[in-house]
Amino acid sequence: MGFKQIVLDIKSLKIQGAENIAKEAVKSLTHVLEDNRKKEPAQIIKELEKAKTQLFATRATEPCMRNSLNFVLADIGLHSKTTQDLKTHVESKIKNILDFFQESEEKIIEYGAQKIKDGMIIYTHCHSSTVTRILKQAWKNGKHFEVHNTETRPRLQGRITAVELAKEGIPVTHYVDSAARFALKKADLMLIGADAITVEGKVINKVGSELFAEIANKYDVPVYVCANSWKFDPETVFGFEEPIEKRYASEVWKDAPRGVKIDNFAFEKMSPELITGVITELGIYKPQMLVDMIQKKYSWMFRIR
Amino acid sequence: MGFKQIVLDIKSLKIQGAENIAKEAVKSLTHVLEDNRKKEPAQIIKELEKAKTQLFATRATEPCMRNSLNFVLADIGLHSKTTQDLKTHVESKIKNILDFFQESEEKIIEYGAQKIKDGMIIYTHCHSSTVTRILKQAWKNGKHFEVHNTETRPRLQGRITAVELAKEGIPVTHYVDSAARFALKKADLMLIGADAITVEGKVINKVGSELFAEIANKYDVPVYVCANSWKFDPETVFGFEEPIEKRYASEVWKDAPRGVKIDNFAFEKMSPELITGVITELGIYKPQMLVDMIQKKYSWMFRIR
Amino acid sequence: MGFKQIVLDIKSLKIQGAENIAKEAVKSLTHVLEDNRKKEPAQIIKELEKAKTQLFATRATEPCMRNSLNFVLADIGLHSKTTQDLKTHVESKIKNILDFFQESEEKIIEYGAQKIKDGMIIYTHCHSSTVTRILKQAWKNGKHFEVHNTETRPRLQGRITAVELAKEGIPVTHYVDSAARFALKKADLMLIGADAITVEGKVINKVGSELFAEIANKYDVPVYVCANSWKFDPETVFGFEEPIEKRYASEVWKDAPRGVKIDNFAFEKMSPELITGVITELGIYKPQMLVDMIQKKYSWMFRIR
Amino acid sequence: MGFKQIVLDIKSLKIQGAENIAKEAVKSLTHVLEDNRKKEPAQIIKELEKAKTQLFATRATEPCMRNSLNFVLADIGLHSKTTQDLKTHVESKIKNILDFFQESEEKIIEYGAQKIKDGMIIYTHCHSSTVTRILKQAWKNGKHFEVHNTETRPRLQGRITAVELAKEGIPVTHYVDSAARFALKKADLMLIGADAITVEGKVINKVGSELFAEIANKYDVPVYVCANSWKFDPETVFGFEEPIEKRYASEVWKDAPRGVKIDNFAFEKMSPELITGVITELGIYKPQMLVDMIQKKYSWMFRIR
Amino acid sequence: MGFKQIVLDIKSLKIQGAENIAKEAVKSLTHVLEDNRKKEPAQIIKELEKAKTQLFATRATEPCMRNSLNFVLADIGLHSKTTQDLKTHVESKIKNILDFFQESEEKIIEYGAQKIKDGMIIYTHCHSSTVTRILKQAWKNGKHFEVHNTETRPRLQGRITAVELAKEGIPVTHYVDSAARFALKKADLMLIGADAITVEGKVINKVGSELFAEIANKYDVPVYVCANSWKFDPETVFGFEEPIEKRYASEVWKDAPRGVKIDNFAFEKMSPELITGVITELGIYKPQMLVDMIQKKYSWMFRIR
Amino acid sequence: MGFKQIVLDIKSLKIQGAENIAKEAVKSLTHVLEDNRKKEPAQIIKELEKAKTQLFATRATEPCMRNSLNFVLADIGLHSKTTQDLKTHVESKIKNILDFFQESEEKIIEYGAQKIKDGMIIYTHCHSSTVTRILKQAWKNGKHFEVHNTETRPRLQGRITAVELAKEGIPVTHYVDSAARFALKKADLMLIGADAITVEGKVINKVGSELFAEIANKYDVPVYVCANSWKFDPETVFGFEEPIEKRYASEVWKDAPRGVKIDNFAFEKMSPELITGVITELGIYKPQMLVDMIQKKYSWMFRIR
Repeated sequence: MGFKQIVLDIKSLKIQGAENIAKEAVKSLTHVLEDNRKKEPAQIIKELEKAKTQLFATRATEPCMRNSLNFVLADIGLHSKTTQDLKTHVESKIKNILDFFQESEEKIIEYGAQKIKDGMIIYTHCHSSTVTRILKQAWKNGKHFEVHNTETRPRLQGRITAVELAKEGIPVTHYVDSAARFALKKADLMLIGADAITVEGKVINKVGSELFAEIANKYDVPVYVCANSWKFDPETVFGFEEPIEKRYASEVWKDAPRGVKIDNFAFEKMSPELITGVITELGIYKPQMLVDMIQKKYSWMFRIR
Repeated sequence: MGFKQIVLDIKSLKIQGAENIAKEAVKSLTHVLEDNRKKEPAQIIKELEKAKTQLFATRATEPCMRNSLNFVLADIGLHSKTTQDLKTHVESKIKNILDFFQESEEKIIEYGAQKIKDGMIIYTHCHSSTVTRILKQAWKNGKHFEVHNTETRPRLQGRITAVELAKEGIPVTHYVDSAARFALKKADLMLIGADAITVEGKVINKVGSELFAEIANKYDVPVYVCANSWKFDPETVFGFEEPIEKRYASEVWKDAPRGVKIDNFAFEKMSPELITGVITELGIYKPQMLVDMIQKKYSWMFRIR
Repeated sequence: MGFKQIVLDIKSLKIQGAENIAKEAVKSLTHVLEDNRKKEPAQIIKELEKAKTQLFATRATEPCMRNSLNFVLADIGLHSKTTQDLKTHVESKIKNILDFFQESEEKIIEYGAQKIKDGMIIYTHCHSSTVTRILKQAWKNGKHFEVHNTETRPRLQGRITAVELAKEGIPVTHYVDSAARFALKKADLMLIGADAITVEGKVINKVGSELFAEIANKYDVPVYVCANSWKFDPETVFGFEEPIEKRYASEVWKDAPRGVKIDNFAFEKMSPELITGVITELGIYKPQMLVDMIQKKYSWMFRIR
Repeated sequence: MGFKQIVLDIKSLKIQGAENIAKEAVKSLTHVLEDNRKKEPAQIIKELEKAKTQLFATRATEPCMRNSLNFVLADIGLHSKTTQDLKTHVESKIKNILDFFQESEEKIIEYGAQKIKDGMIIYTHCHSSTVTRILKQAWKNGKHFEVHNTETRPRLQGRITAVELAKEGIPVTHYVDSAARFALKKADLMLIGADAITVEGKVINKVGSELFAEIANKYDVPVYVCANSWKFDPETVFGFEEPIEKRYASEVWKDAPRGVKIDNFAFEKMSPELITGVITELGIYKPQMLVDMIQKKYSWMFRIR
Repeated sequence: MGFKQIVLDIKSLKIQGAENIAKEAVKSLTHVLEDNRKKEPAQIIKELEKAKTQLFATRATEPCMRNSLNFVLADIGLHSKTTQDLKTHVESKIKNILDFFQESEEKIIEYGAQKIKDGMIIYTHCHSSTVTRILKQAWKNGKHFEVHNTETRPRLQGRITAVELAKEGIPVTHYVDSAARFALKKADLMLIGADAITVEGKVINKVGSELFAEIANKYDVPVYVCANSWKFDPETVFGFEEPIEKRYASEVWKDAPRGVKIDNFAFEKMSPELITGVITELGIYKPQMLVDMIQKKYSWMFRIR
Repeated sequence: MGFKQIVLDIKSLKIQGAENIAKEAVKSLTHVLEDNRKKEPAQIIKELEKAKTQLFATRATEPCMRNSLNFVLADIGLHSKTTQDLKTHVESKIKNILDFFQESEEKIIEYGAQKIKDGMIIYTHCHSSTVTRILKQAWKNGKHFEVHNTETRPRLQGRITAVELAKEGIPVTHYVDSAARFALKKADLMLIGADAITVEGKVINKVGSELFAEIANKYDVPVYVCANSWKFDPETVFGFEEPIEKRYASEVWKDAPRGVKIDNFAFEKMSPELITGVITELGIYKPQMLVDMIQKKYSWMFRIR
């Protein structure tokens, strides 16, 4: 599978999930290196930059992929003495980032699993592989708890969550989305994933997340978002507004009659005030402090401008 | 179709909608009269009472049917001189009630249509024939407005609403339930039906109604409930708690895997504070004042105890 | 001053204030009687009805005037034996109503003055002669208190309030409207007038009233509306929506430059939940119960339809 | 024990509880009848009225006693033909009222017990004999539930509640007042008594009631007040403000040092918006509708003015 | 115009606006240098410090001026070898700061303009040259939007805003302050300036700002404050409370009658929770994170103590 | 008193207060040094680490003690050339920390006292020596204010506060806990201590603190927490949940009857949104920014993992 195929697969949603996309995108650069292995370093760099531009264009909102590609190609000019140098450098950077994702995931699962205590009811919406891995880890650690989850129309990713947990023997109660009040009323914890994080501390996640987090706050149910900190979008520092993707009407209603318009918003922005903490590889932080930590640890993210 | 069939059809949901059920239930009494036409008045009364008991047992929460049957059979002993007398009396009462439902519907539509002004966005959830008739009336009156509606999982009654309105040329935008915030943000009016009304002014309606009414209140969108006042349940005066029906899991997920429990709450109780007014045949009133009006106009409802 | 002049004066705002308008409108009927004194009773009734229609047309929202005219002309056909009979009847009804307004005002002042205790800070907005009379009565009763008031742009009626109270020696602190938070923070009572009351318990009053009542509620400052109960609009029972009058742009900005549109909303609707009680001639009631009391005491208001 | 002793016992708090006081006060009138049995009817009426005035003066806020005495002595002039007539009349009225209290209590317990379902956690504050009787009745009816209660400083009446329930085998968890959040978080119902009810629907009850009802509302825990409807104070219709009694500092701190002032507020006013329903002998109503029902059923309460 | 004149002009409000004052204050130091050009370096430093003290005294709350003067005079002792050295150093620092203000303004306008999208309604209060420049920039960028603004009594700076925007052809709707609810209900963005920022993230701005930001939050309208980060007051770190200036009563009411006290609060403190982001030269940050960024970038601000 | 005695005294609550415990714990290490003075450096280090483990085990939640011990023993291996070296190093570290606590306290008092202005009412709950020292300092600075405080059942530490302040002549009004609404309604400032601070910005303090801070926020009363920043618990960064200690039932009710369970929660977690600022030795910061400042100033706290 070459570079072009990967670009197509990301575009067509065959490759999904913020981190998966990021990983495949950085890996695709090895094809670019290979395809241009006979060229001069300067030329190869140009090709890599072009590849980056193409990858950026696949999706409107994928800060994790963007940060990853920026990381790999940062200061690349300093390593362009020979083509081999360049290749070694880029490959080592790619390895760095793949290792990083691996270690990050493990840390997030470790920190997240600590939040789960015996006897709890945990509410989740949609499907986040990080959230389900946290729940499974806590179960393995011997914690006994229940999960309430909502189905997440139109794509019903909530069912994937329910199936995954039920397989492990974790008791799950499943609700339609509009019954979220029942699902949350006696819950002790709300645990969800994230697609992007803005400088203002807003978390972009599946539609319904803000609505349900508001009820959670009303009932004093702590709301934790589980996310790699590379989902932070540094462009938002300078006024860029993370767009809310609208998807195909047919996802909601296959043969909707004429005259019925369908607004299929895929995401919702959560106010930072509603979020108790973001569980990241850097530790657990309120959204704003997380942005601050990111600036400290990954200052290169901010250097781009 | 005899009395037993009607009982079965109500039980099996073939006959649906609070008023439909009420109408069919009172009409079924003519079969009872017919089946027992050769008996003594006292005996016929006993049969009618038995029929009432059977009809009551078909559904947990149908105050409209109960009130209607109580209305027909109230003071029946005073009209038991001859079998003919009794028959005439009961038939006339049945006619009264059918006329009443007819006139009530017309008044509700008239009053409701007045609330709709040019340029408005009206939000509705689920399907209420009263709500759609109000909207269609307003459209016929020459008002230009838009409708936002949510699909209402698991049975997707929101689609029925969307189809009905689109047929009339009314612009409809359709959303999944969890996107209610988008549907409500710029709305000017929320208009829904009701299944039952309690003495505390709570309105029982499709699950999601309370959740979405809370957002409507946040955004200062007035919330009107459209309902015949016979949906008031007088038993609630004495502590009876209107139950929240849970329906079949398979409605939500046909082949849910083992280990996944499904809580399919069909209804939700709306706090009276969230409701701007109930549009009834008696006029438009806040829930508590409506209860008061009912007590004045239909005092026999309260005499039962 | 004949009937036509009164109509003009009401139209041109020369005659102002809900009760003043009502009084002048009913008094104007004596001119109609006089002008048509030689006609047949049936003819005079026609003229009176025509006059009512003309008076109704002077202002969009004057339920107090409408109720008063309806009261005078109700069942007038029963008194049409002779012209003299008719005249006597109408004149006696006019006297009734003028007496009623006089007594009502006194009762409202008495009940309202009881709410004011030593050491209180009372907040008021705009100018309501009922409110200032209550405050002056309480002062005469020996209560010592302070008043905070807001100026009420664009017409600065708050100054009229401030001047009136200062004349009596009542300490007044005056604020611009946007400083209402400072004016309300340490207040013990909010006291305002009303222009109309709807069946849903909404009170229509000067723009800013809802905004400031919300802060009052936040700070647990009780909000009392002082109003004759004839300001209730019975048409709202049937879906009529009390309109929010927009007045001349020049009131806000005399020579506003081109390109600047001015929306000069004169009133605001207050939610019944924000109102602790309405002080009326019938006693002090929550808005919804007031509507109920009105229905009991002035059932003719509801008979019109 | 003569009339004077009863007056003293009410004053000194030996006789406590709104209904107890009311009962003892009306019973004390038999002593007045006895003491004056040789006098003329007109003279006896004078003595009874004097007794009423003395009883009124024993406590600042006892609407239940006031309503009861007013009930007994209402229209007494119509029964003054002979001393015997008068005696018979008054004694029969006293019996009426004692029977009424007996029957009321039974109804309140019946209606209240219906609100309690298996598996519930019920929160209560202070001690109300009506509340504990409801709980005990529900327990006898075979319901299994738990009670959370707060101790209610300074007099620790919460302990009386805990002891009473524990004796019946009802599981009780006891908290200090400031831990009310823990007591309420997972509760399904809040059940408290009342001392007085105003025309605005405010309920006066033990200090802490408003504070805890606010948390209950936040967590969507329904708040029911259990009270005989004679606790309504008709004077509040005309602006009378139910005072908040401050009790002895020594109740809070026996030997408080100089310089420490103690404000020992015994009661708190609850906003009607916070109350789901009042469980009375007339049925269960929202506070404002209750006032309306009282006006219908006990119209003589309002005739006093 | 010499140093003394500038001091007078700042005092008398001839020179207005946080940045204008800061610029004129630092420029005034060139007069001090000139006036003392023949003195010894140590003496000149003394004079400069004296000038600073005089400038500080002109206004109670001008952190931008204070930070600017502190910046210019920081570590001045290190540059005191010769008078010429000193002069060169101070002049270069002055130039630095003037350049900084210029560049900052441009960045804020660029970032702010990005927040404005086609079809938006933007609400603003009072007059902020930064806000109007952002709006004009967005208009130049081809965005089509509308502005709602409130007049801002007593000085009606809202008119200046309206005039400025109307000149550019931007559609403006103008409201009195108490009609802010109407102005905000359908808005998509609230954009205001700031006078000072405290360490707790509070923003001090024109009276009404907190009140209107609360409504904006209720309606989920994002609230952005546009301000140079030098408006941060480092003294607040150590407990200094930014005072709320009260201005002349005559601004509100020229010839207020005796007995009417006027509290003319010029500013209001906005809670950081109400603010979505502060648009600064450093990027867009939540108030607290902004303070953190300031500490990083301008650490000398904090060294003063 | 040897090391073992100190361990026992901390365990048995003889030594109380976060800072006292920290001081005694670090001082106890001198005994360990003394007891092992003849051993090899490596051996002494082992003993010190063992002592730390024992001290850690005395109390579940004492981040201040943990941070202090970690500070003293950090990098101890670098100073192990000779036993004397080691002793000198540890003793100097102990001195550092004792000096630090002294200076911190002084700064907190200085910054806190600045927040208190003439005419204020300050509300406090429980007893915090830092809070009372701030109040006494402000009084010495000539400020005139009043204090409202709540008694803090079950241990009535509020009385200690009241006595301490009354001794200085500061006017104190004392309330039972459930009357907090009365205590807070007209207050200008809420000032409390803290036991621990989490990475999410939650403050752990005496039960009631969250409840009362919510009312304070409702009434716009700023809430300041006074605490040494060493109360921050760095373990919370990695998912550790600060436990809420439950204390002996007998503290609440000495001879509670059988069947009454007592849940005696000693602490409550306050949401960071409710806190205006934390007054620390580093200055006054919002909770999240404080955590950030701690990370900057005391980065060794974070190195432990």
